[in-house]
Amino acid sequence: MPDAAPPGPGGPEPADLVVTGCTALVHGEDGGIGFTEDAAVVVRGGVIDAVTSAADAAGLPAAERVDARGQVAMPGLINCHTHAPMTALRGVAEELPVEEWFNDWIWPIETNLTERDVELGAMLACAEMIRGGVTCFADHYFLMDRVAAVVADCGLRADLGWAFFSSQGPAGRERSLEFALRWRGAAGGRITTSLAPHAPYTVDDADLAATADLARDHGLPVHIHAAENREQTEASLARHGRTPVEALRRGGLLDVDVLIAHGTGITDDDVALLGRATGRVGVATAPRGYLKFGWDTTPVRALSAAGVAVGLATDGAASNNSLDVWESMALTALVQKSAERDPRWLTARQALAHATTHSARAVGLAGRVGALTPGHRADLILVDLTGPHTQPVHDLAATLVHSARAADVVTTIVDGRILMRDRRLLTFDVPGIAAELAARLPALTDRAHGRRIQSYDG
Amino acid sequence: MPDAAPPGPGGPEPADLVVTGCTALVHGEDGGIGFTEDAAVVVRGGVIDAVTSAADAAGLPAAERVDARGQVAMPGLINCHTHAPMTALRGVAEELPVEEWFNDWIWPIETNLTERDVELGAMLACAEMIRGGVTCFADHYFLMDRVAAVVADCGLRADLGWAFFSSQGPAGRERSLEFALRWRGAAGGRITTSLAPHAPYTVDDADLAATADLARDHGLPVHIHAAENREQTEASLARHGRTPVEALRRGGLLDVDVLIAHGTGITDDDVALLGRATGRVGVATAPRGYLKFGWDTTPVRALSAAGVAVGLATDGAASNNSLDVWESMALTALVQKSAERDPRWLTARQALAHATTHSARAVGLAGRVGALTPGHRADLILVDLTGPHTQPVHDLAATLVHSARAADVVTTIVDGRILMRDRRLLTFDVPGIAAELAARLPALTDRAHGRRIQSYDG
Repeated sequence: MPDAAPPGPGGPEPADLVVTGCTALVHGEDGGIGFTEDAAVVVRGGVIDAVTSAADAAGLPAAERVDARGQVAMPGLINCHTHAPMTALRGVAEELPVEEWFNDWIWPIETNLTERDVELGAMLACAEMIRGGVTCFADHYFLMDRVAAVVADCGLRADLGWAFFSSQGPAGRERSLEFALRWRGAAGGRITTSLAPHAPYTVDDADLAATADLARDHGLPVHIHAAENREQTEASLARHGRTPVEALRRGGLLDVDVLIAHGTGITDDDVALLGRATGRVGVATAPRGYLKFGWDTTPVRALSAAGVAVGLATDGAASNNSLDVWESMALTALVQKSAERDPRWLTARQALAHATTHSARAVGLAGRVGALTPGHRADLILVDLTGPHTQPVHDLAATLVHSARAADVVTTIVDGRILMRDRRLLTFDVPGIAAELAARLPALTDRAHGRRIQSYDG
Repeated sequence: MPDAAPPGPGGPEPADLVVTGCTALVHGEDGGIGFTEDAAVVVRGGVIDAVTSAADAAGLPAAERVDARGQVAMPGLINCHTHAPMTALRGVAEELPVEEWFNDWIWPIETNLTERDVELGAMLACAEMIRGGVTCFADHYFLMDRVAAVVADCGLRADLGWAFFSSQGPAGRERSLEFALRWRGAAGGRITTSLAPHAPYTVDDADLAATADLARDHGLPVHIHAAENREQTEASLARHGRTPVEALRRGGLLDVDVLIAHGTGITDDDVALLGRATGRVGVATAPRGYLKFGWDTTPVRALSAAGVAVGLATDGAASNNSLDVWESMALTALVQKSAERDPRWLTARQALAHATTHSARAVGLAGRVGALTPGHRADLILVDLTGPHTQPVHDLAATLVHSARAADVVTTIVDGRILMRDRRLLTFDVPGIAAELAARLPALTDRAHGRRIQSYDG
């Protein structure tokens, strides 16, 4: 067999897309970040076919070419934990401790949620994420059929889970499973799914164990909040004699693939448990919200040392105000240096590794996305560095992490399809969505009924 | 005398500029932040003539009109402490403790500085600041005639000080004075000046006292680094038995107008001293860099309670990687909540107050800039909130501080002159500046000579 099909009478089959003239962010054998100048990325069938030189790609026939001179091509960002529909509640409950935020605002408001609210919130969220260079997100919410439909339409990649509480009885867990099985692999494989128990403080031990059984039986991962803050860990120890992470372990959730959101209350003993997990463990860190609530931050250094993948996230816009994963990347670098009081730790290159391969591992997509490597899905973004705020460039990793901003992402590509080009969204009508959502807000945010979907006493 | 000149035969004299259809950020009697919808800002002679309704302004003749529907008009941001020319060194020395950053990189490189390097760095800095909605900055550096020339040309407002060390002998202080006197009030009043001793660890007590005398004799303010971090305060106590702020007081610098950069090492006793100062005291906080160096942050709550104006800043791009004051505003809110472990503190409205009136006080321009108030200089920016990341709006202050980004500033106006319109810079050719600077970088960053301009053992 020859190495490649011989060219036909008309020459080689054209590539679907060639991005050329860029500097490409590449990963070395050891996972380290490097840069290749004057590069080209060749895409065929939604997959990265080659990362080559601009010169080599110059004569390559292609259905579409993107001139990316002055731009960096890098893997699309992955938002490892969010609640896309909560974008409808951006700014609704500010300057509050988490108990009041949940009990007086979010959980009362969520009794009003309609499928259309969820859909419009998810549309706005996806538009924001595409504009900010996010190509994949892990979502955890309710009425998730609407989120899945938005993802299918808009071209993003997502791992979706329908959240449940033990207060819903078995129906919650069953719905989460039914959703996960029905949508798994949809949208040409862009949609993956997870079981989504809310948290150890709202899902009891029996339900955690039942979830682990379902995960094992059906080959599904689990996406859960745990040890969100130190107070939750202390409350869990006081009431049940074990940390939230220990509750996951006892429930069998560290023997299946699990994505843990936040983990700012993870203890040293928890880190050891997570390091010994037989399943894949990822932790999603969303540092902006931890600052805003006055919490500690995720122990990224200890988790990384234990071999746990720490991915970047934003949480929902109702607490975080933003789905700006670029900011999460910068804040992870800054806050980790601050928390460890060590300016040498969490370098710009490490931050880029968390944003790319570590995040891909955290959401279970290692080897499929997170690197510009032949055979990976063609999820990539182009970042313009010609603005005055990103000049001059002494250290490209530092420029990307500490000087560039989400708005410098000019082009976003998923599975080889361009979702934003030169800052123009190609799959959303933002003014229409915003106008329809604005009209629905009075009904959505009404709290006069006095009900809530759950109570927080984390 | 009539209240206003009677309209001539052609009707009233046209306004120079009318910005109409915006939501205007206004300050109440108590200094609190409010918003007026469907507003118009009328500018005459470089001054805000009126903030009125869009309806009232509809028929007003104007030389220029800006349709600002969907945008917020607010006072331009003030960068209360930076080193504009150091933009040339953005990213040159990363992931380092401050001693190595100064001794091994910055101070060796600064022996190479030429006037053209300073000018190009300042140009890039001013371009970045205009693009980020900054209308005024307080600068502290060398070869400041070149910075003043850039400011005069590009249309920004600035308070400029030529830095000096005691190691330069009396010549350093004399040059700082000579510069301050020569440029004071230049560029139609857009340039104000300060004396600029570097810091209590590089300027001795005699020179601090001499600076205070010059400030008093010439009616000049003083801009100085002090108590940059806790280690400096501890070193000062160990060596001299007094904190850096106490050194300022003993030198008489709290009896003149003083702007203190950073102050993350300010103690409780220092706060009391600053609160009792007979001169105007401002403190500039640049929170990104403190996270990056692993320092504490400025004690904003205590300083504010003592009546000290805390303004927002970025420091230079060589440490901060960015002159993004919008980010400083968000980070001040976030980091203060985190440092105080109090989500109710440093609200979005307080952050906006720090960004506007408090910053104006800190740089000695209270009553002239920092509010959209008739009689103030017409330094304002327009912020577009139609992007998906700033929708919906439940709380406009939160949207501005926590969801909007510097890149949402579409128009920047100083003294009524438009410096950026619809994201297009009108007074800079960025590619030309970046290209010339790039060519000079090898000579600028050469450290083979082994010299440095100063030694850090703060």
